Amino acid sequence: MADAYPTYGRIDGPIVIIGFGSIGKGTLPLIERHFDYDASKLTVIDPDPSKAVFLRQHQINHLQTRLTPENYREVLGDLFEGGGGFCVNLSVDTSSLDIMKFMRELGVLYIDTVAEPWAGYYFNTPDNADRTNYALRQAVRDEKARSPGGTTAVSCCGANPGMVSWFVKDALLTLSRDLGRETAPPEDRAGWAALMQSLGVKGVHIAERDTQARRVPRPRGTFVNTWSVEGFIAEGFQPAELGWGTHETWFPENAHRHDTGCQAAIWLERPGAITRVHTWCPTPGPQFGFIVTHNEAISISDYYTVGEGAAPEYRPTCHYAYHPCDDAVLSLHEMFGSGRQQTRHHILTEDEIVEGIDELGVLLYGHDKNALWYGSRLSNEEARDLAPYQNATGLQVTSAVLAGMVWALENPNAGIVETDEMDFARCLEVQRPYLGPVEAHYTDWTPLQDRWAQFPEDIDESDPWQFRNVLAT
Amino acid sequence: MADAYPTYGRIDGPIVIIGFGSIGKGTLPLIERHFDYDASKLTVIDPDPSKAVFLRQHQINHLQTRLTPENYREVLGDLFEGGGGFCVNLSVDTSSLDIMKFMRELGVLYIDTVAEPWAGYYFNTPDNADRTNYALRQAVRDEKARSPGGTTAVSCCGANPGMVSWFVKDALLTLSRDLGRETAPPEDRAGWAALMQSLGVKGVHIAERDTQARRVPRPRGTFVNTWSVEGFIAEGFQPAELGWGTHETWFPENAHRHDTGCQAAIWLERPGAITRVHTWCPTPGPQFGFIVTHNEAISISDYYTVGEGAAPEYRPTCHYAYHPCDDAVLSLHEMFGSGRQQTRHHILTEDEIVEGIDELGVLLYGHDKNALWYGSRLSNEEARDLAPYQNATGLQVTSAVLAGMVWALENPNAGIVETDEMDFARCLEVQRPYLGPVEAHYTDWTPLQDRWAQFPEDIDESDPWQFRNVLAT
Ligand SMILES: NC(=O)c1ccc[n+]([C@@H]2O[C@H](COP(=O)([O-])OP(=O)(O)OC[C@H]3O[C@@H](n4cnc5c(N)ncnc54)[C@H](O)[C@@H]3O)[C@@H](O)[C@H]2O)c1
Ligand SMILES: NC(=O)c1ccc[n+]([C@@H]2O[C@H](COP(=O)([O-])OP(=O)(O)OC[C@H]3O[C@@H](n4cnc5c(N)ncnc54)[C@H](O)[C@@H]3O)[C@@H](O)[C@H]2O)c1
Repeated sequence: MADAYPTYGRIDGPIVIIGFGSIGKGTLPLIERHFDYDASKLTVIDPDPSKAVFLRQHQINHLQTRLTPENYREVLGDLFEGGGGFCVNLSVDTSSLDIMKFMRELGVLYIDTVAEPWAGYYFNTPDNADRTNYALRQAVRDEKARSPGGTTAVSCCGANPGMVSWFVKDALLTLSRDLGRETAPPEDRAGWAALMQSLGVKGVHIAERDTQARRVPRPRGTFVNTWSVEGFIAEGFQPAELGWGTHETWFPENAHRHDTGCQAAIWLERPGAITRVHTWCPTPGPQFGFIVTHNEAISISDYYTVGEGAAPEYRPTCHYAYHPCDDAVLSLHEMFGSGRQQTRHHILTEDEIVEGIDELGVLLYGHDKNALWYGSRLSNEEARDLAPYQNATGLQVTSAVLAGMVWALENPNAGIVETDEMDFARCLEVQRPYLGPVEAHYTDWTPLQDRWAQFPEDIDESDPWQFRNVLAT
Repeated sequence: MADAYPTYGRIDGPIVIIGFGSIGKGTLPLIERHFDYDASKLTVIDPDPSKAVFLRQHQINHLQTRLTPENYREVLGDLFEGGGGFCVNLSVDTSSLDIMKFMRELGVLYIDTVAEPWAGYYFNTPDNADRTNYALRQAVRDEKARSPGGTTAVSCCGANPGMVSWFVKDALLTLSRDLGRETAPPEDRAGWAALMQSLGVKGVHIAERDTQARRVPRPRGTFVNTWSVEGFIAEGFQPAELGWGTHETWFPENAHRHDTGCQAAIWLERPGAITRVHTWCPTPGPQFGFIVTHNEAISISDYYTVGEGAAPEYRPTCHYAYHPCDDAVLSLHEMFGSGRQQTRHHILTEDEIVEGIDELGVLLYGHDKNALWYGSRLSNEEARDLAPYQNATGLQVTSAVLAGMVWALENPNAGIVETDEMDFARCLEVQRPYLGPVEAHYTDWTPLQDRWAQFPEDIDESDPWQFRNVLAT
């Protein structure tokens, strides 16, 4: 990246960053670098007193407040009094939907990286169907349907959910080209869905391998991760979830469908972060991933549906297949093994990480070239060169936030959108300088390869890419 | 430990150590320290050329040969030509049974730490029932029955199998005392079984937590462990196995019984090293262990049986519940995730380990005081002070070999024995200086504690210590 960073436009009015954790802190320098705005009108809301020193040293307004269902209208209403500006929600425990609705009332641009609920929701909601990302996403989709157009609010625009939806499109064009097919990008959702269908894609893994590590053995009793520990634990204890493709012939015993909404997904009566799937990434080759529920598993299956509802003509399977950093694998093993959440949390910083990359891509499978992994292979070392205050994982997220903000500025009246509905080429153009190597890798691996020689498994030998084969026992 | 190490007797004739891996190398200094023998008659057999330099530097005879079914009689016959002496089998891939039989023919004392088969057996035996430790152990028991008495051959005398059988007896006496009962040690097997039954013990976990770690992130593609990687992979891919207690009311769907032999155990159609159980150790409290098959799971359930065969009056459940060092947890995750065994193996040495202990004990559960963990909590640091060339894991094994050798010298005509059948007090007397803190810990933890709040589980709320509750899903 050259010295002169492009400025993508002016943000008039206040900028409010909600949450100053690993992502908030990493987003700040990108905002500072790429937008023109009135610095005195930038405020960070974060209740955590440990964030105060850094913010004071950098002369950033800090509102040390915990947003709640009771105070958010007052707190945010005050900050955005004049109207205009941008609300960048990068916190845990605040309702994306409520804040998004309020911002749209005020005419304030809005972005978040997850359809987050208010505190308490993840663990105190009694019915598992209500604890799904399906439910959280559907509420946002219903709001979009109820209130189309208007001020742009970008939903779930991080690395995943977020960037990976743009990768799916780039990957489809790559695959199309490599299959000797016409490559003009489709112009609308129906076109994209038809393209995926016509290419014979049966499904998509969000296939991630994080190899970042430090030189300290993981301390017992501490959950170590490369991004929000709180966020990961919360989603890890949600039910495993996946977009459910039309090629699936088997249905998991512990799975449930939905009766309302887009019906693109199913959920399993089991926490995602202890449910393994067979997947593939360039660095390790075949590996276990955890089928942790994510918004994009549902949005991608929904977006690429030909037809609709419970029995469409075509729909890809889609789910996360996440191998977090080794310290997080050990943290999960400890957490589920003890039955207790660790009270000590630690996010590995760019300075202590001594090796590793976050290899985050989409694995499009089931087509004539078997499987294509397309994604970012950003190392921590390169991330440190590109921007301050974040590891590789962080930069993949914050640069997606940047791209989403640019797109929103350029499309201020697009209403509520998911990343699948945004201009993937423009967004990747903005984001790509921060992603390290973005590569396409074909593989002949399938989940039928290298199964246990000595033990019977419940698999379907006739169709490698059945979810029945992907799900590990 | 004082400067003057006790000498436990003279070994007349040759000493042959088969296998000079982590255990062989660690046993050598204990033999040197505690026995009187003719040093020129000590030979190490190990085909690995990388062992040659060390052995040459220490002026130890090295026969760089791989024992096979074809050559073992010739090779060992030559070495033990004059009769007498001690054969210490610490290798992988040699048949414990064949070598033991041959040594007894020659009148040579024998000891091993595992009922090992010849190379190829673990992965090339088509029927899983034949790949069990039940089958391997039963063959030794059948030989004992066929050929009672005679020269002593100690079977499976390492830490576990081995030492833990002595811990069970110490733990029973401790529990008996703490329950206000009479504590005179029983004199025979029937007496011990009756004691365990009368104390209300439902079962025993061999509950181990290894926290040894170095300051290097585990390299991808390398299986890292604190003892034989080859041995751990082999047993890890054997079916999960456990001694099956009379209190069990549920039977796992994928389990099988045996029609012949002692019938004390069952096996599951699933590799042990990917099958988790809920267990407890003093340092972590509740944790996952892997139910890796081990000889002691069967021998302990068999030894403490009141009655016999498939439907005895009383039998405890017994199985391994092993949390290996974190690098091994990650190695297993990688191996099962890729479906491929790593080709690079590494055993952590005492010099690179910067922290941690091997906490290896027996958890006696189901009685009036709920559960008692009794075991060794040896740190690597302390191990380094006690003896050269080994980490904490190694020293727990090699000191058991030492104790077994002492007992064999003192009881040279006891025939084929398992550690349950040896004088536990004498053996622990010899071993204890090498075990670091040996402690008894009561806990009120049961496998019903801290279950998933949000998800249904197939458990039996009426009886905490059912294996159904112990087995993790
Ligand atoms: N889409 C993606 O790719 C992606 C990736 C990483 C993180 N995320 C999401 O981004 C969010 C932030 O991640 P992170 O790694 O920075 O998390 P973090 O745990 O490091 O930080 C979260 C911050 O939110 C603050 N906070 C908590 N409750 C609040 C409240 N009620 N009001 C205001 N602030 C509050 C905390 O004090 C903390 O500083 C999480 O929701 C996470 O799930 C998305
Ligand atoms: N009971 C216990 O507590 C316990 C604990 C640890 C290890 N063990 C057992 O002890 C044995 C040794 O363990 P380790 O950690 O030293 O293993 P290791 O893998 O470090 O060493 C095994 C050695 O055996 C040698 N070997 C291989 N094939 C041979 C053959 N055919 N003839 C002669 N030597 C051969 C190898 O070259 C190697 O040096 C293993 O069988 C292991 O399962 C038992």
